[in-house]
Amino acid sequence: MSDAATLTRKADFPGLVTADGQPWHYLDTAATAQKPQVVIDAMTRALGRDYATVHRGVYSRSANMTLAYEAARKRVADFIGAKSENEVVFVRGATEAINLVAQSWGMVHIGEGDRIVLSTLEHHSNIVPWQMVAERTGAQIDVCPLTEDHRIDLGALEALLTPRTKLVALAHVSNVLGSVLDARAAADLAHSVGAKILLDGCQAAPRMALDMVALDCDFYAFSAHKLYGPTGIGVLWAREDILDAMPPWQGGGAMIERVTFDKTTYAPPPQRFEAGTPMITEAIALHAAIDYVAALGPDALFTHEAALARTLREELRNLNSITLFGPEDSAGIVSFAMEGVHPHDLGTILDEENVAIRAGHHCAQPLMDHLGVPATARASFGLYSDETDIAALLRGIERTQRIFG
Amino acid sequence: MSDAATLTRKADFPGLVTADGQPWHYLDTAATAQKPQVVIDAMTRALGRDYATVHRGVYSRSANMTLAYEAARKRVADFIGAKSENEVVFVRGATEAINLVAQSWGMVHIGEGDRIVLSTLEHHSNIVPWQMVAERTGAQIDVCPLTEDHRIDLGALEALLTPRTKLVALAHVSNVLGSVLDARAAADLAHSVGAKILLDGCQAAPRMALDMVALDCDFYAFSAHKLYGPTGIGVLWAREDILDAMPPWQGGGAMIERVTFDKTTYAPPPQRFEAGTPMITEAIALHAAIDYVAALGPDALFTHEAALARTLREELRNLNSITLFGPEDSAGIVSFAMEGVHPHDLGTILDEENVAIRAGHHCAQPLMDHLGVPATARASFGLYSDETDIAALLRGIERTQRIFG
Repeated sequence: MSDAATLTRKADFPGLVTADGQPWHYLDTAATAQKPQVVIDAMTRALGRDYATVHRGVYSRSANMTLAYEAARKRVADFIGAKSENEVVFVRGATEAINLVAQSWGMVHIGEGDRIVLSTLEHHSNIVPWQMVAERTGAQIDVCPLTEDHRIDLGALEALLTPRTKLVALAHVSNVLGSVLDARAAADLAHSVGAKILLDGCQAAPRMALDMVALDCDFYAFSAHKLYGPTGIGVLWAREDILDAMPPWQGGGAMIERVTFDKTTYAPPPQRFEAGTPMITEAIALHAAIDYVAALGPDALFTHEAALARTLREELRNLNSITLFGPEDSAGIVSFAMEGVHPHDLGTILDEENVAIRAGHHCAQPLMDHLGVPATARASFGLYSDETDIAALLRGIERTQRIFG
Repeated sequence: MSDAATLTRKADFPGLVTADGQPWHYLDTAATAQKPQVVIDAMTRALGRDYATVHRGVYSRSANMTLAYEAARKRVADFIGAKSENEVVFVRGATEAINLVAQSWGMVHIGEGDRIVLSTLEHHSNIVPWQMVAERTGAQIDVCPLTEDHRIDLGALEALLTPRTKLVALAHVSNVLGSVLDARAAADLAHSVGAKILLDGCQAAPRMALDMVALDCDFYAFSAHKLYGPTGIGVLWAREDILDAMPPWQGGGAMIERVTFDKTTYAPPPQRFEAGTPMITEAIALHAAIDYVAALGPDALFTHEAALARTLREELRNLNSITLFGPEDSAGIVSFAMEGVHPHDLGTILDEENVAIRAGHHCAQPLMDHLGVPATARASFGLYSDETDIAALLRGIERTQRIFG
């Protein structure tokens, strides 16, 4: 078919076979990534022989777990080009990261008549938290439209910005279309009016080399489970001076300095934002996931998946029944519609062929409204994807055409 | 020594040996419990051969994961005697559960001049969230004192209650002292003035049979990692009519009904409170943990650990240098001070003997202030604890006495 660089790492992923040992053509990596065995092994060790709590024990195993937990934070910081591990807050996932920014930073810095800029293609997790802030503060949400090929329109963004714009919150890579934002340009535009910028990096972190300094953004959010790591943990990165000035959001153990019933004082970040026993074993497994991805190289992942997306788009374009959405240079995510076939029906038939795609609104109903469809079919690639997965998908689509034709 | 019923399940727990294969006398189960192999195996399978996202996929493995995730919710509901699985919200941990109640229910139902009753022995996670609500609303916090043997004084509670009391939030079992609250009596008192009651069940859920209907409380919070389950997940139980009326706290995917930029509508509970991809594999591992605990029987656990606590208290009472805190009938948790030896030094020496205790304020600084100490040494039992652990602790204490004597 094409020049897709093949990483051929399927054997590392126990999830990529069916219950009866057949290859499973998993094309739903944008929803969640399968885990390499090294990640599972890290989790197993952390829950077993190495298990203890962090930050509190005076015994050596707890001290070791604390070192491992903090080493995971340092590994994340290095992986995304943060200036310091103090800029890395472990959260439950990207959704919580955005809610934390909205409810801690947002409720201080956004007021009545202020403006928050989102785009038409945002995931619900980067819409609803801001609607909640807008409702509580009287701020307004401005929606940045898309270009014809379904990218966030930076020209339109520039026109939307005003001195009342306090925050611009955008997807770095669209979870539906794979559209890649020129994030640095968006950051420069936001900063030109004194606004902060938050990037939803859920789909970028597993697919692109990240450098917080080069991006010059203010907040960056992503989930571990999309980065080949475990569920239950994600990352909020924020500039240290911004985090320092943010009030706590959740109260509890580990985030305090001193508690009395008269007055409680809080720990500095990142601890201020990590109330309670943290996701200890999840952090350690995320560390293993980042080691795995970093060894392959994020640039290689991007090239690999973009090539697969290009190949798939070419193949689908040859089929009369298919409408393609999104830009040609998608970052490994291809959304499409099939004439006369609901995406769910396509997904169900493909499942019989051991091909897993996503069918639905992908938590992006405003984008569905814009595309004029209730749902799309979406094939999304991961580092383990290859042309056998595309071939299986195409066979399934052809079979569906015969059934519905 | 005594009549401690021995569950002798050490072999099920890979964490209960040191790196060089020696028995590890783990007496910090109140901080976090070691995991039985069945829990680790459940996590391994969920991250591997069974892995997929929930609630969204049209393919069979995702449908199966959704069934497994919802089966975990049902298992929790049955384990705690909930009327319905719709009363069970999966959260990151007990801390998040309490913050959710504080920020969703509390910000609606607690106003200026209203009163929130806590007790002197609360964990920071059941203090700080309420201080944050009080600060934002102008409500007042009343502190219920303790009896001489360090239980929450229900007579004093009754005297504190007023028609302005909106919430009573108490630990079901103290994490420092093991004091068991007569929770039903506390609930009846709270309800007598029209207040709601929240129970912090972190230390009760792993040690006692729970029955939400019999307790007649309104909110109940606990963490999986203290219940022999994984980190990164916990449970908020709340009465269905209360949950139904609560506004969402975190916005994102899966908690919505319909999103447009004009208006967003929310899903019913529990989904309304589970924004984003949930703790999928953690829920499945929690299910395995509950199966394990339920097979032994929560009543047997309570009897076992209470007997060990009684034995330890008897032994420590024979040592002149030891001051014991808490009631005689502690639920498996024994806090003490050793004359002339800082708890941290004791903990460090015990560590050399492969005995792990906790030394510190246990996230209960107001209680430390009340006890007149900066920290205590705490030995806490689990279902795997036995008299060999007590013997090792006593040997270590005697050695410490010789070193410091």
